[in-house]
Amino acid sequence: MQICLLTDFGLKDGYVGTLKGVISNIAPKASIIDLSHEIEPYNILQAGFVLHQSYRYFPKGTIFVAVVDPGVGSDRKPILIKTKNYYFVGPDNGIFSLVHSEEKVEQIVHLQNSKYFLNSVSSTFHGRDIFAPVAAHLSLGISCSSFGQKMEQCQKLHEFFPAIKKDRIFGRVLSIDRFGNMITNVSKRFLEENFSDLDFSVLIKGKKIRKIYSYYTEGKKGEIFLLFGSSGFLEIVMNQSSTAKFLKVKNGTQMVLNVLPKL
Amino acid sequence: MQICLLTDFGLKDGYVGTLKGVISNIAPKASIIDLSHEIEPYNILQAGFVLHQSYRYFPKGTIFVAVVDPGVGSDRKPILIKTKNYYFVGPDNGIFSLVHSEEKVEQIVHLQNSKYFLNSVSSTFHGRDIFAPVAAHLSLGISCSSFGQKMEQCQKLHEFFPAIKKDRIFGRVLSIDRFGNMITNVSKRFLEENFSDLDFSVLIKGKKIRKIYSYYTEGKKGEIFLLFGSSGFLEIVMNQSSTAKFLKVKNGTQMVLNVLPKL
Amino acid sequence: MQICLLTDFGLKDGYVGTLKGVISNIAPKASIIDLSHEIEPYNILQAGFVLHQSYRYFPKGTIFVAVVDPGVGSDRKPILIKTKNYYFVGPDNGIFSLVHSEEKVEQIVHLQNSKYFLNSVSSTFHGRDIFAPVAAHLSLGISCSSFGQKMEQCQKLHEFFPAIKKDRIFGRVLSIDRFGNMITNVSKRFLEENFSDLDFSVLIKGKKIRKIYSYYTEGKKGEIFLLFGSSGFLEIVMNQSSTAKFLKVKNGTQMVLNVLPKL
Repeated sequence: MQICLLTDFGLKDGYVGTLKGVISNIAPKASIIDLSHEIEPYNILQAGFVLHQSYRYFPKGTIFVAVVDPGVGSDRKPILIKTKNYYFVGPDNGIFSLVHSEEKVEQIVHLQNSKYFLNSVSSTFHGRDIFAPVAAHLSLGISCSSFGQKMEQCQKLHEFFPAIKKDRIFGRVLSIDRFGNMITNVSKRFLEENFSDLDFSVLIKGKKIRKIYSYYTEGKKGEIFLLFGSSGFLEIVMNQSSTAKFLKVKNGTQMVLNVLPKL
Repeated sequence: MQICLLTDFGLKDGYVGTLKGVISNIAPKASIIDLSHEIEPYNILQAGFVLHQSYRYFPKGTIFVAVVDPGVGSDRKPILIKTKNYYFVGPDNGIFSLVHSEEKVEQIVHLQNSKYFLNSVSSTFHGRDIFAPVAAHLSLGISCSSFGQKMEQCQKLHEFFPAIKKDRIFGRVLSIDRFGNMITNVSKRFLEENFSDLDFSVLIKGKKIRKIYSYYTEGKKGEIFLLFGSSGFLEIVMNQSSTAKFLKVKNGTQMVLNVLPKL
Repeated sequence: MQICLLTDFGLKDGYVGTLKGVISNIAPKASIIDLSHEIEPYNILQAGFVLHQSYRYFPKGTIFVAVVDPGVGSDRKPILIKTKNYYFVGPDNGIFSLVHSEEKVEQIVHLQNSKYFLNSVSSTFHGRDIFAPVAAHLSLGISCSSFGQKMEQCQKLHEFFPAIKKDRIFGRVLSIDRFGNMITNVSKRFLEENFSDLDFSVLIKGKKIRKIYSYYTEGKKGEIFLLFGSSGFLEIVMNQSSTAKFLKVKNGTQMVLNVLPKL
């Protein structure tokens, strides 16, 4: 069984290695894959987005452990979500909003059974003490209901989703990737579901962008353009340059998409 | 058998990948886990600390390869330490001081038997040519004594350990983690062993800190406070902010803990 | 079978995790090793160099997937190179120039058979949609010729190779490693093949360097010197300091090696 890790722990402190030690101690045969550990500290939106654009490429049954957890030690709940094809383990702070809206959710469990935690649970490192051991036990075949009581709902963050007001769509940059491409929360599917025969321009940081290409080297040097990326989301990009640096845009920056009248 | 790697090699140059190639060439079934490769270049204290706070979460029998090795090629010795539960392979430069002080050491071996090295040993990359192949052979069941002669002692760095003078403890920041939390070398256990019923304040960079909380979100915005972290060491922290940046503190910075008179 | 990944994707966006998800979905038992994902964006020279200095330490039969691919989506070809001992999968943009010049090449294949791609191939992420699935299928024993038609040649980048003009060698810095060591494209073997009984000095950024040592701590504080590194290439280095920062040198910077007259 595969366990896939997503955190904002970074790679320098040994926190991620420790999670793997804990998992391999409980489930020596589990195969562990890193999705990312370089999520911006505390950035739940970026983590939720990265999870959403990647999870479907993993084998069915994969257990995703997602720990971006500014509220660790407070009363936010540790949870497990079972969907038709996958398991998701992490804090109930909205990090699973996107996958929850897309997957067929079968069960949400409040992780309460300390039998499946480390013996001593700290108040600052639940990744090590709760989430990693729960994922490891889950990979060994322990049933979801053994971990705690069912919950009806989990937290959702509305910032993940674009809003429509007449012919304007209010969205935001969910993630700036390493190449400086700015990936927004407006997907091609979302546009197709809400508008037919679409023509639009994007307004961000006072800059208006309308040109759409289909791959990066189509852009001229210095040109900012749009592109539906490999995950189906609208990206604001440049050819071999960082658009985010050029426009001085940070994760979470808002943008407006104006639907244009047909000529 | 599990082999766990800790280096200051970084991840961009392929040095770590090369270690894994060497290991999998000798021991194809070894399971390799990264503890960290982003230790500050040449920072033996940080490496020793990261190793110390993580190793106990790994399965018994795990082989730790720790290579922060400014003296590579000089006359510092390559060594192997066997403890009751683990193996540690690396340069004899004090990197194992903390684990050595905590684990039951059974054997220290000077790695001399070139039969277990790569055929050609460079003078600049012993991680690849000596430490990785030794760890791989060890994982195959080669006995410790096959690798070279026993040693009585290995190097210890006194900077790892706090010093007590009357009612003052002189310590230092061993590691600044990715969140900017400053982790000191003063552990709760050390305090409990030396003082009863303890009340104290910390002085660092002219700043006096006394407030202790138990988790991060207890802190108010902008407040610097103390906390015993998940590894039992005293941390100087802020809620969702980098204390290290705020106080302009670097790894290794000294601090004084003043034990306060009981009222 | 082992699959080794080399990209400029970085580790924060989940792109690398996605490659691993794709591979493990097709070939659950494949063992995946990261060579590097922190290649400078679009830097084909650095990627080719890192691959070249590492690949020979991996087990025979290892499949290397190298994706530094500024031309993704354009008409550059996706290829597979089979050599006597290894497989190389990636874009035909010269990234394999060094390994191609060193290995006994048996076959070059233009990856055309979409049966071995993901169902839907994007125009921006061939790592996920073409290269990873091809590598996974290759690891399952699919024959090279099944993936497409044979090619006679693949692209070569002359910038990888030094040029000799009389008693001067024109080379460049292929990679600046994490310690700031500047690794050039002039190998000891290249020098020995072209000159006997060699004495030389290096000129880079107006600085002339002649001193050669064999390990780093031989250098005095602040001294810039030369050294044949663990991969056999000439490096310009300092003891525990970043030469690249000191000389303000970037990847790709040119240097001249002047062969000195015998006294």
